Amino acid sequence: MADDTYYMKQALMEAVKAAEQGEVPVGAVVVCRDRIIGRGHNLTETLNDVTAHAEMQAVTAAANTLGGKYLNECTLYVTVEPCVMCAGAIAWAQTGKLVFGAEDPKRGYQKYAPDALHPKTIVVKGILADECARLMKDFFKKKR
Amino acid sequence: MADDTYYMKQALMEAVKAAEQGEVPVGAVVVCRDRIIGRGHNLTETLNDVTAHAEMQAVTAAANTLGGKYLNECTLYVTVEPCVMCAGAIAWAQTGKLVFGAEDPKRGYQKYAPDALHPKTIVVKGILADECARLMKDFFKKKR
Repeated sequence: MADDTYYMKQALMEAVKAAEQGEVPVGAVVVCRDRIIGRGHNLTETLNDVTAHAEMQAVTAAANTLGGKYLNECTLYVTVEPCVMCAGAIAWAQTGKLVFGAEDPKRGYQKYAPDALHPKTIVVKGILADECARLMKDFFKKKR
Repeated sequence: MADDTYYMKQALMEAVKAAEQGEVPVGAVVVCRDRIIGRGHNLTETLNDVTAHAEMQAVTAAANTLGGKYLNECTLYVTVEPCVMCAGAIAWAQTGKLVFGAEDPKRGYQKYAPDALHPKTIVVKGILADECARLMKDFFKKKR
């Protein structure tokens, strides 16, 4: 069985796709019973839509795969701590487990909405945090 | 010039559409320079997607109309206080003004993420609050 590091690498691959399109490099995958059932990477610039975060797309894709909108038996892997919007979506989906890489002290849900997640959602932080953060830092360094 | 009550009635018409489809009746419109540039009603059941709230769709539609993702010169009217997810989206869009009808003490952003909105967003509450709340109460009464 693949572990959290394996799936975070998959999320990182999504984040790289975002970077290649000039998007803030955040990637996400949703896993259910050891199978990736949804993927997403940030597309806010490409789609001209603030709601097009990696997690939102992965959650929507996973629900499409499952044919049901609840992800209580799924794990969402995302390279960067979700923002308030995404935390709200992760909560509505009653996501079973959330695994994120780098923390986002400026925009992350932990600061603005620490109780936003569903009470049953298990949270694991810091998986491949350095790789996830480095991708972000490199992106913003190039932007300057 | 139309006022907040006029546009909230438009949002209520969207909410009625949701109710007619068996959806929790929440509706939203985005107004820019006295013109409605985005509409949305809750479609979470129909689309099988927790992210398909009225506000999310109105924000996405408005950005499509404008060809830009920021709504700083726009007002979002929504019949019920936005949830954490929608408040996050409203913040990312840097929405100029948010007007909502009924409060939502259980799921509203004011409880879980009181600082989630953009600091420059003007908030007006309670426009047609009774009508907005009645639509919700009637819906849940029928559901029981």
